[in-house]
Amino acid sequence: MADPVLSSIDGGVLTLTFNRPDRLNAWTDAMGRRYFDLLAEAERDPAVRVVVVTGAGRGFCAGADFEDLTAVLNGSYRREGEPDRRSVTLPATLGKPVIAAVNGACAGLGMVCALACDLVFTADEAKWTTAFARRGLIAEYGLSWILPRLIGQARAMDLLLSGRTFTGAEAYELGLVSRSVPGESLLAETAAYARELALHSSPTSMAVMKRQIRGDWNRTLEEAEAAAVRLMTESFGRPDVTEGVAAFLERRAPRFPPL
Amino acid sequence: MADPVLSSIDGGVLTLTFNRPDRLNAWTDAMGRRYFDLLAEAERDPAVRVVVVTGAGRGFCAGADFEDLTAVLNGSYRREGEPDRRSVTLPATLGKPVIAAVNGACAGLGMVCALACDLVFTADEAKWTTAFARRGLIAEYGLSWILPRLIGQARAMDLLLSGRTFTGAEAYELGLVSRSVPGESLLAETAAYARELALHSSPTSMAVMKRQIRGDWNRTLEEAEAAAVRLMTESFGRPDVTEGVAAFLERRAPRFPPL
Amino acid sequence: MADPVLSSIDGGVLTLTFNRPDRLNAWTDAMGRRYFDLLAEAERDPAVRVVVVTGAGRGFCAGADFEDLTAVLNGSYRREGEPDRRSVTLPATLGKPVIAAVNGACAGLGMVCALACDLVFTADEAKWTTAFARRGLIAEYGLSWILPRLIGQARAMDLLLSGRTFTGAEAYELGLVSRSVPGESLLAETAAYARELALHSSPTSMAVMKRQIRGDWNRTLEEAEAAAVRLMTESFGRPDVTEGVAAFLERRAPRFPPL
Repeated sequence: MADPVLSSIDGGVLTLTFNRPDRLNAWTDAMGRRYFDLLAEAERDPAVRVVVVTGAGRGFCAGADFEDLTAVLNGSYRREGEPDRRSVTLPATLGKPVIAAVNGACAGLGMVCALACDLVFTADEAKWTTAFARRGLIAEYGLSWILPRLIGQARAMDLLLSGRTFTGAEAYELGLVSRSVPGESLLAETAAYARELALHSSPTSMAVMKRQIRGDWNRTLEEAEAAAVRLMTESFGRPDVTEGVAAFLERRAPRFPPL
Repeated sequence: MADPVLSSIDGGVLTLTFNRPDRLNAWTDAMGRRYFDLLAEAERDPAVRVVVVTGAGRGFCAGADFEDLTAVLNGSYRREGEPDRRSVTLPATLGKPVIAAVNGACAGLGMVCALACDLVFTADEAKWTTAFARRGLIAEYGLSWILPRLIGQARAMDLLLSGRTFTGAEAYELGLVSRSVPGESLLAETAAYARELALHSSPTSMAVMKRQIRGDWNRTLEEAEAAAVRLMTESFGRPDVTEGVAAFLERRAPRFPPL
Repeated sequence: MADPVLSSIDGGVLTLTFNRPDRLNAWTDAMGRRYFDLLAEAERDPAVRVVVVTGAGRGFCAGADFEDLTAVLNGSYRREGEPDRRSVTLPATLGKPVIAAVNGACAGLGMVCALACDLVFTADEAKWTTAFARRGLIAEYGLSWILPRLIGQARAMDLLLSGRTFTGAEAYELGLVSRSVPGESLLAETAAYARELALHSSPTSMAVMKRQIRGDWNRTLEEAEAAAVRLMTESFGRPDVTEGVAAFLERRAPRFPPL
């Protein structure tokens, strides 16, 4: 049986590829478990600075596998092993940046999977849809938390209530993704951006910033600022800042320690 | 005396029309009461799946009626009956989606009325203004909560502090509305979108999603996700999901039960 | 020694100009102290209705002064006098609107300084960067609170994690600023907008609205609305509303009392 998620590393950038192309990489427990394991491994591996997530074939991830969903609905679903407590929002809890490269069909759970990453690049022609309202489902796994924080409340209502299909190009116009490019250049553009992070950004800075951005939604500005002053003082004691300032003054690339 | 709000239904879409065209549909207690009654009725009526709100004549709603406002200010205002505890944000608390079709002048309280709906479509040439700062007033009825969640904090500051007038076309560029179209096609475009929701989206899904989106502003991502998992499990027990999945697999329109 | 911040007033608009042009107005304690003093003075001065902040020469503010930063890092930094408890987010706590006119280089602490203002106008060609991640630093002084509330979470991640440089024109496309114009017209455009606020907007309305917008991030819609109803009732008792309504009906500019 083929590995449900492929993994390859190049210059500090780990690429994970959903690999059920004949099913548009529809989500199964086995694929999820492998994906979470690889993310956890990436977090621990000092050679990995940035993670890119994409899909093999014509899809990114078409959502929950329909065979599984049908089995859940008719009560015949049998899970292998213990239920997995990890979820598609796992990238949000990692210290390392995770970038989704949405190469094609991105629906339902697949859309949560993409948007739970820190940044999203998409192919212009990729087909996106929340889908849930058209299947009698709800906004799964925090999508109703994420979407309004990406594109505002009314646009989130539009995408969730209608379950309509839209292209990657429209996703960019809606502010849902950071970049939309022709499909043939998606992986190259994403890799180039990821490599910039791997080369020029302090891994520790990125980890702290991810926690700051996500945590500050539940703070007042005063609390966020007080926390930032503490974190800044801590940063002054790390080798990263000495190296970062030196590299800037010497006009060379920095050599930051791994996370 | 003419009915201050007209009501008509077509294919699951109820259209409510503010009907004081000689006053650009300026808001009075009587108009508000009728509007709230019709919304409450719509929420209970199984034939209604989506509500569209618009205005008769050249305006959507020009804000509080100046005669009333002047009477309030000089102490001569006499309210008919008990004070109404309902407010222009009523659409936010309904389970059914409410779409504003802003056909013309949309000012002050009228703008709160439009933006408290779940989605807004506007005529390109409609004139919008918060107006409050230019009258010595404040951001009324939650507009200072809504605006930053639609267009970000600085754009909200711009519109509220300046009280400047802008067109529907600029409202779209600001991200304030989901669509801006020439005035003559506004009602047709809004109705077409509303009909899509009525035909293809589960009423129960939409009601749950509205609560999720609005409630998740005050949750952490973890809390939102935990709530979503509970709601997903509940959804598996409803007829909507069986019908939604069947309709998808059979490539036909779903027949969802009313809310 | 030149004054580190220049100050001039014209028609209710006070312009503060960072004045260390040979250092791209890099931030020092002395410049900060002078800036905070002038802001505090502006808040008390009835002749000031709006504040504009800009930079002399080619920069707005290039961030913390490198000599100071280096001294902090090697332990040789000696502060003059007591630590200043005020910070670059001071504009957020004032009742009067503060508009940043970003004329050139806007980096690190300088970017926090700009975005902590209520509105930002920028020169198309100004160079912006958060810079922190490239120096081994973190998101300073609440920038991780501010950015997602201006441009959404993913775009905030992009700018903070990468520390990449972008132009004023891109800042506008990202939704980070209210207006981007050719550098030669920046001050004129900002002054024209500021003068509109000074002439047409009630100072008390603006002060209340600033508190509403910033405070409502930590309220539910219901709480925000309840607070707005109390503030509206209070506003009915102030001279501003009588004057604002009279000026509107008489089609003349209002004469609002100072804050």
